[in-house]
Formats: sequence, structure tokens, C-alpha cells
Amino acid sequence: MVTLDMKKQVVIVGGGFAGLNAARILGNKEDIEITLIDRKNYHLFQPLLYQVAMAALGEGDIAAPLRNMLSNYRNITVFKGIVENVDIEKKIVMSDFGDIPYDYLILACGVQHHYFGNNQWEEFAPGLKTLAQAKEIRRRVMEAYERAERTKDRVERKKLLTFVIVGGGPTGVELAGSIGEMSRYTLSKFYRNIDPKLTRIFIVEAAPRILGSFAPELASKATRSLEKLGVQVWTSSMVSNVDANGVQIGKERIEAATVLWAAGVTAIEIGKTIGLETDRIGRIIVGEDLSITGHPEIFAGGDLAHFMQENGTTLPGLAPVALQQGRTIGKNILLDLKGKTRKLFRYRDKGQMATIGKNKAIVEFGSLKFDGILAWFTWLLVHIYFLTSFRHRVFVLMQWGWSYFTFSYGARLIVNKEWRFYPDPDTCESHRKKEDQE
Amino acid sequence: MVTLDMKKQVVIVGGGFAGLNAARILGNKEDIEITLIDRKNYHLFQPLLYQVAMAALGEGDIAAPLRNMLSNYRNITVFKGIVENVDIEKKIVMSDFGDIPYDYLILACGVQHHYFGNNQWEEFAPGLKTLAQAKEIRRRVMEAYERAERTKDRVERKKLLTFVIVGGGPTGVELAGSIGEMSRYTLSKFYRNIDPKLTRIFIVEAAPRILGSFAPELASKATRSLEKLGVQVWTSSMVSNVDANGVQIGKERIEAATVLWAAGVTAIEIGKTIGLETDRIGRIIVGEDLSITGHPEIFAGGDLAHFMQENGTTLPGLAPVALQQGRTIGKNILLDLKGKTRKLFRYRDKGQMATIGKNKAIVEFGSLKFDGILAWFTWLLVHIYFLTSFRHRVFVLMQWGWSYFTFSYGARLIVNKEWRFYPDPDTCESHRKKEDQE
Repeated sequence: MVTLDMKKQVVIVGGGFAGLNAARILGNKEDIEITLIDRKNYHLFQPLLYQVAMAALGEGDIAAPLRNMLSNYRNITVFKGIVENVDIEKKIVMSDFGDIPYDYLILACGVQHHYFGNNQWEEFAPGLKTLAQAKEIRRRVMEAYERAERTKDRVERKKLLTFVIVGGGPTGVELAGSIGEMSRYTLSKFYRNIDPKLTRIFIVEAAPRILGSFAPELASKATRSLEKLGVQVWTSSMVSNVDANGVQIGKERIEAATVLWAAGVTAIEIGKTIGLETDRIGRIIVGEDLSITGHPEIFAGGDLAHFMQENGTTLPGLAPVALQQGRTIGKNILLDLKGKTRKLFRYRDKGQMATIGKNKAIVEFGSLKFDGILAWFTWLLVHIYFLTSFRHRVFVLMQWGWSYFTFSYGARLIVNKEWRFYPDPDTCESHRKKEDQE
Repeated sequence: MVTLDMKKQVVIVGGGFAGLNAARILGNKEDIEITLIDRKNYHLFQPLLYQVAMAALGEGDIAAPLRNMLSNYRNITVFKGIVENVDIEKKIVMSDFGDIPYDYLILACGVQHHYFGNNQWEEFAPGLKTLAQAKEIRRRVMEAYERAERTKDRVERKKLLTFVIVGGGPTGVELAGSIGEMSRYTLSKFYRNIDPKLTRIFIVEAAPRILGSFAPELASKATRSLEKLGVQVWTSSMVSNVDANGVQIGKERIEAATVLWAAGVTAIEIGKTIGLETDRIGRIIVGEDLSITGHPEIFAGGDLAHFMQENGTTLPGLAPVALQQGRTIGKNILLDLKGKTRKLFRYRDKGQMATIGKNKAIVEFGSLKFDGILAWFTWLLVHIYFLTSFRHRVFVLMQWGWSYFTFSYGARLIVNKEWRFYPDPDTCESHRKKEDQE
């Protein structure tokens, strides 16, 4: 794949929103050869991942193989592989299938869950970053109901019907809202020995309120919507321990068979491994053109990048940020090749939104804030619009339509224990190598 | 769940075609309480399982939770659990969640793959009986292409692009045809370093011809259709060894990274465990009313039952057989309760069919035999008709329509290694208990 002609070699690590959109800008451009490496063979539409966890969508509805998505760009080669290190002096990417020289390098391999120094909690409280994790969460939630139906021990049953979500950001809210809706409206007629409406659901958030990135009035409305679905929101509640039987919050304790983690994230360690400048959570610090100080040929984008805005705030880990950064990186490489000055990255704010349940959502776009059914439809349209392909749009819309009118979810299948303790969302670390073997 | 009133307790082990249809006959009937136990929480439409393995359909398209399907029958309780033994004198089913007394017992927990005494081959050649196995096959096939794209070793690449299917029955033919079609028509534009059209596909069959249950002229036509898709059919070829690098067939050898098993099956061992009379492959021998000699309260149906027809032939393990047997068992229990004579089971032959690829299938219905596009449409209509629910029908038809006109398959995602060596299709064995723990 690496030829000796004078084409510029661009290596992209990670096929998320940033990597994919950089590739699309550079695709089919003359004098460039692109190698995209991802640990997975697919691009994942992360914003709808919680719906796979809740069995509302299937994995094929929100993911597509990267090589299909990029097949029309003849100058892009996709490899499923793992990047172990980078020699930034010799300009060589070291992967599990050999060394790849580069003229430009784009690092975009995202974040993973962070247990604040308590990695032993992960076993009891899986996060939601990968398809495998989504399916593990689905399995745990559905298995809890199956076990509750079987047991005759009422205390055990109560524990099985208790779900704790740690973290009150959009992911935590969406997970809790889904479980609330499912338990109150969908599951009730399927069981004989238990009443799924008795399901206890908790959001445990360390901050004084949930949805900290939203305006307080919207967060307050979301809290009320959650309560109406039976979700209890515990704020100012720092989790001090997680074990197989529940969570400890200081002196308080909740006995729960299922704990889900939607709290902190940390960057994939590649920045530190290479020896680049990183922030407190391991994100690579980039300049205004998204390249790295002293190495204009190395870019970072998406959740992995630490970008300081002019107003002194750091950009959050959102899909629109990653998408726009990927495009700017691609354009800056093209500008280089034309001998022109690079563009400086400016984030065009696309607002933020979260959905709680049927007809319930919140939307914030600059000073515009609204909630309820209008917000829910906005959420729906925006997510359908940004879905990867026409095929995905059609199938997701059909499934949602079906669920909306029948109030039933998709197939709540329990297919083995599929997760096998995979904490990592993406492509970069060498310690994953052993797990990737057949 | 077990009450002390005088209702008759019916325990059904297995939620396949036989168990499900027995349950439907007995559902909402007075004076009966039904407990259905399955190791999985879903009913699987087995005839389309190979399409999940080939990424043409998602798992939710061909499976549905048993408790959803049976929720309108108020007298049916569904448990996800494992039956370990049965005390046929005391009339007690022993499960991993306690003992369950019965008045009537229906055993319908199917078959599993059989490696002719070479269970060590399973690791190298997974079978296709469960959703987890289907997804493991999908993972292996797609992973082989990913590895072929990465390697620079041409001999290794050839091995990675070689697929051997052991067994030339309908499942083997359908798998081989799918790989042929995918490699020749779908994958070619997605890779840069390999030509997927060079994929070598073999069906290795011990008998003198493939599709032994079909008429010779249809089998011959299917062979030609397979050849046109690049599949080489080796008949009179007994596999003597399978290892990580290929298969040995007497003195011949094929180097292959992927070997799939579509050969023999053996019954789930429950018959032997209980001490019932079984045939050579462990199936429970049933009389004309589908009950067991000396125990009219115990029935067996579906693939697990050995039923001898009047003409001296044993019924094959087909979905229509299981479906009809389940219904007859249900009806015979109702006849018992009314004090009437039981019905004797007679199989109404629904014919048989197999599909090889787009517009290519064979259909045999009594003396009626046809192939080509008409057979393919027949195959399609019959399978859509027998799909479990209206929802399944709509979604499967849409996906097929999409694939037909775009010649693209669904999402060929590789989601970890999910299979974890689960050989067992169903609900009965105690040695699986440890794997079912969380």
C-alpha cells in the first residue's frame, strides 16, 4: 500500500466523526494517498448508541462498515488494526500489522470511560461507548427482569428490579428515561410473577444538578419529566463504591443488580504513549489549526483533542465538534499542499439536545430553549438527518414509527454474554492487541 | 407460580417451533397452567439463520422474545432457565431455579451439532444453530477479509480467502451460495489490496451428491448454480481432520482460514439423562400420539423426537414437522382433559426448498419440482409467510428488497468475538449451567 512515488501519505487513526470527515475531504484528491486505521471495521453513530442498549434499535441501524462508506474514494485504504505507537521523528506509525510511514498524521481515536481511579468498578458498572458495551447493557437489563421473574425471594427481586445510572449527563438521562418508559409502559404485560412498574431507577449525580451543560431551567424540566417516568434523581451524590450488589454514596446505599456508568471519560492513551502534550484527562493539546506545537504535520481531532476557544473554554466531546474538526484538518492539509495558509478552527455551535422519552426532550440552541413535543420532534429530525446513509435513515425511521404507535420496543433479545470486558472505544492502545487475536 | 388448585400443570421445555405451537394450542384454555422454559429468552426462526450469519439480516429480524409472543395467554408463564433432569416417577422437572411439578411434560429442546466423535473440531469449524453461532460465523468471515487486506504474504492471503463448508445439506448450500454471491458481487469494490472475486469456496460432502433429501435432478441444478457463483462442490469427500489451518480429506488437503460446519446433528442429551428410549443420535422415540411408551403424560416433539412414519421412514428435522407436532401434542392434551381419544400424528408434507443466491433456488413439493427465479420467489414468499410476526415480515421484506435492488448486503459489522464457544442450541443440559451465570 505504500508506494515510492511522490504522493503525500496521510495516515488517519480512528474512523469516528473526526477521522471519517477528514477522510472525506481528502478523498479522491490528487497527489494524496490515505490510510485509515480503526480497531473496529465500522463507523458508529454514537448519539443513538443508548437506543441499541435499550433494544429500540439494532446494531446495524447505527453503524456501517468504514470500507463501504469510503469505497468511492479510490485513494483511501481502510485497515482494521491497532496503532501501538508513533515515531514522530521518523514519521512512522507502528501498528499491529507493520510500520506505516506518513507525511501527515491525524489522530482521532476518541475517549473511553473513566472510573476516577477505581477501574475495578467497571465489571459492575459498564459504560456506553461501543456496540459491544451497548449489547452488554441490554443483556444485563433484560437478564435482571428474567431473574426477577424466576426468584421467590422478595428482597432479591427488589434488588433485581433496581437500576442505578451513575452520571446525569445526556447519556445518563437518556438511559434512565428509556428504562423508565420501558418498565412503565412496555414490559408490564409480559411477566406473571413481577410487576415491572415497580422498577426503581436512580440517577446518581455528583454535581448539584443534572445536565450541567444545559441551562438550569431545561435541566429542571428534564428532571420533572424523568420523575414522571419513575426515575429518582439524586444530585450532590458522589459514588464512593460500586460492587456486585449496588452502590455506596457516602453513608447512603442502594442495593441494585444493575449499575450503569455514564460519568467521566478519559482520552485514549495514545497522546501520552507518543509523548505529546496532553491535558489532565489525556487529551492532546492542539493549536488553532488543530495541529500540534512543533509538529505541523500531526493533527488531532474529535474527543481526543483539547481545543481551547478564544473565550477560554475547552470544546466539549460532541459529534458536531468532531465532525467540524475533521473537515478543517482535511482542508488544512489541502491548503498546505497548495502552499496556502492554514485555516484556523472556529466551532460553529450546533446547540445541544437530550431526549427523555416519548414526546419528551430538551433543546438548547444559543439563547433559544424549548422542551416537550416540539423539542422531541426536533431531536428526532436532527438525528435522522445526521444519520450516516439513506438506508440507515429509512430503517431507523421505520423502527421509531413502529415503536411510537405500538409503544413496543424492538427485539429484546439476550444473546449470550458478549461483552467480555472490552473497555476501549477505539483504535490506539497496544494493550488491546492480545484481545484482538482470534 | 405453582398453585394448589386443581388445574393441570403443563411444563414445556424449549420454545422452538414445537414448544411454541404446543403452547399456543393450550394457551387461554381453562383448567390448564403452562410453564414454558427455554435457555434463551427468544424464539428463533431457524430457516433464516444463515442470513444473519451472512449479514443479510439482523438478529432482531428473525427472533422475538418468547414472553412477548405468548403474552396474550394469561395461563402461560415463561422462564429463562435450564432444565437439568426430570424425575418421571414423581413427575418433577428439575431446573436451575428449582423443582417444577407437572401433570404433562413436553420435551422439545432440539438438536446440536455433531462432530462424529471429534468435538475438538468445533473450535475450528463452528456450526449454525444459534444466534451467537451465526454472529461468530459472520465475524470469522468478515475478519478473514480484513486480515487478507492487511497481509503481504500471498500464501497467507490465499488461505484467508478460502472458505470450506463441511456438509452439503440445505444449510451448507445456503452458506456457500451466500459467500459466493457476496464475494463475486458485493465485496469487490471495498478492498484495495485483495480481489474478493478470487475467494475460493468449497462444499465438502461425504455422500455421492449434495442435497441428499432432494431429487437428484434438483441437486444437480443446485450444484451448477453454486459453480456459477464460484463454489466448488466436492462429493464423496469425507473430512478426516479439521485444524486451525484447514481441512484434511483423506490424502487431499485444503488450506483455509475459515471452516464452517453444516454436517451432522445430534439430539440434546436430555432423553438419555432422563433415561428414556432414544435412537442412535439421541432422539427420544415417540409413539403415534407423540407420547412416550409407558408414560402417556410425557411428549416429545420437533428435532428432539424420533417419529417413525407408516412407510418406515423417520421424519426429518424440519420446521413444518416441529410445528405440526407441537400442535398435535397440544391437541392431545386437550383431548385427554375432555376424556376423548388422542389423535394420531400424521405429517402433512409441506415439501422442501433451498436457496442458492439471487433468483436461484430449488423447490420440491411431492412430484412437483422446479428451480430458478420462480423457485426463488416461492422460497421468499413461504419464508415471509411463516415469519413470526407482522413486524418481522415488514422489516425482513424491506431489507431483502433493499439488498435485491442495490445488490448490497446489510451491515457487515464485526462486533467482538461474541461466541465464546457455546455449542448448545437449547435448554436442557446441566453442564451449561456454569456458563449461564453472570
